[in-house]
Amino acid sequence: MSRGEMIELRRDPLTGRMVVFASGRIGRPHDFSSAYKASPPESCPFCEGHEDQTPPETWALREGEPDGPGWRVRAVPNKYPVCEAHELIIETPLHDADLPDLAPAEVEEIIFAYRSRMEALAAQGWRYLALFKNHGHGAGASRAHPHAQLMGLRFVPPLVREELRIAQRAYQRSGRCIYCETIARELEDGERVIEADRSFLVWSPYGARVPLECWILPRRHQHDFVNISAEDIKALARALRRTLTRLRKLLSGLYAYNYYIHTSPLAPKIEATKLGYHWHLEILPRLGRLAGLEWGTGLYVNSVMPEEAARRLRAAL
Amino acid sequence: MSRGEMIELRRDPLTGRMVVFASGRIGRPHDFSSAYKASPPESCPFCEGHEDQTPPETWALREGEPDGPGWRVRAVPNKYPVCEAHELIIETPLHDADLPDLAPAEVEEIIFAYRSRMEALAAQGWRYLALFKNHGHGAGASRAHPHAQLMGLRFVPPLVREELRIAQRAYQRSGRCIYCETIARELEDGERVIEADRSFLVWSPYGARVPLECWILPRRHQHDFVNISAEDIKALARALRRTLTRLRKLLSGLYAYNYYIHTSPLAPKIEATKLGYHWHLEILPRLGRLAGLEWGTGLYVNSVMPEEAARRLRAAL
Repeated sequence: MSRGEMIELRRDPLTGRMVVFASGRIGRPHDFSSAYKASPPESCPFCEGHEDQTPPETWALREGEPDGPGWRVRAVPNKYPVCEAHELIIETPLHDADLPDLAPAEVEEIIFAYRSRMEALAAQGWRYLALFKNHGHGAGASRAHPHAQLMGLRFVPPLVREELRIAQRAYQRSGRCIYCETIARELEDGERVIEADRSFLVWSPYGARVPLECWILPRRHQHDFVNISAEDIKALARALRRTLTRLRKLLSGLYAYNYYIHTSPLAPKIEATKLGYHWHLEILPRLGRLAGLEWGTGLYVNSVMPEEAARRLRAAL
Repeated sequence: MSRGEMIELRRDPLTGRMVVFASGRIGRPHDFSSAYKASPPESCPFCEGHEDQTPPETWALREGEPDGPGWRVRAVPNKYPVCEAHELIIETPLHDADLPDLAPAEVEEIIFAYRSRMEALAAQGWRYLALFKNHGHGAGASRAHPHAQLMGLRFVPPLVREELRIAQRAYQRSGRCIYCETIARELEDGERVIEADRSFLVWSPYGARVPLECWILPRRHQHDFVNISAEDIKALARALRRTLTRLRKLLSGLYAYNYYIHTSPLAPKIEATKLGYHWHLEILPRLGRLAGLEWGTGLYVNSVMPEEAARRLRAAL
């Protein structure tokens, strides 16, 4: 079969996921064409001046009184919670601005807000804090206005548990953090690296699930995102803003993504993960939909190899 | 928190999946409205008279010569394969007809086609046969014309491996098939049952991932779909057609679904799963998109409890 050589099955070493790379599928025809439109800012409860349309804020970076205008980043409880502690972090008063449109200092304030709210929830005794963001209709966002979400969970969620299991097993075997080892090897190899500075590596993982998937990892071993330093907040903001700028350049009208942080569980598990786990941020551009193959088998099918994704993302800036 | 009582976390006993049921989220507002359109039959390679637009057929129920008109069900290799053996089963010459539009005998022929092609691929020595169907844009279908897909894999895919692991462990503990036990318990309880006849149970599982998820299980213990009898093909066709009719009534314009069969791996594993595994067909209506929460944590969030789903599905016919 002539297309056979374009198919490669990979098992991702950090997550255990199985991904079929089938580059021949990238040009396949589609019967369906779709379009969507977003509501205007006038009806957006997250816009400045509409503070009375959200529950009272739990935290903000602001001038002026709570629940009035003058804020730059604002945290509020989710009116439609998935769990008991479910906050929204409204990242900017600007309805249509995504991170690439903001100044570097504004993106730093967003990362600072993530850390601040995670610190606050950590003090409430949750077992795990899940921070994630949905941007755009294609990524399952229900609201267009830029916002992240933070949930306090009583348990470690399945994907993090699986990463922890793999990392602990590697640590027991080698006495080293599997993420630190991966970072060193990927930097040396370079094929999947998008960019790196002293603090962070941005790469497309060996077992990328979707075209242009990117991960951002701190180069220095750090298991818990909440311990991020002021200097690293600055560097992470820069890496995240640059990576999203690359993605937006490549995807233009299809720009939509999810990102989320994977970090250590909280006490009592935190001690056990100190040496073997390594927090990171995963960015998933959302170009397609999962279909019966993925839902039915648990395999992912990706039409763009991470080496090709990294090449394109490097060239985009 | 007043919405707390609407949140329930469940772990599905057959799959190990964790699902958060949050019924308060069903009415939450969305900024995005979307629309799509499908290509017309004239440009469809699966329509009768366009047989030259697919690779030569591997099998058909037909009058007339291969690769000409006169067929009722037709199997062809996928032009954009995900693996070495990847077939499409074109279920009807009618471009716009889904199973509820077809006569019962026509749906029986479709199930017969599934069995026939799985028998043929089983003889080629694959380790697992994955049969699935995507219907509608919302379900990730690239083609509108009704078709299922069949893949021969060299390995047991992750979700089936996990079901097998759980079933084997239960069998070792109790000496009984966990699916047979579940069927008996669910029939007695009745709350999640949609319908049942002598041959099949249709129910909404305890850990349903999406609103209106339905499973169809043979009531008699049977680990391998390929062993399905002629009588059970008839009964399965009836159950599947009726269940999709219920879903279409409830979903109308949003009608889109994936379904897939989970069955025993092939030799040498088949002997080991004879007693403890139980094939079944899972139907997933696709009303929403996964977002950062699901991609980042592996949790599913479902706004409709399966007990409520079953109630509505029972009432739909």
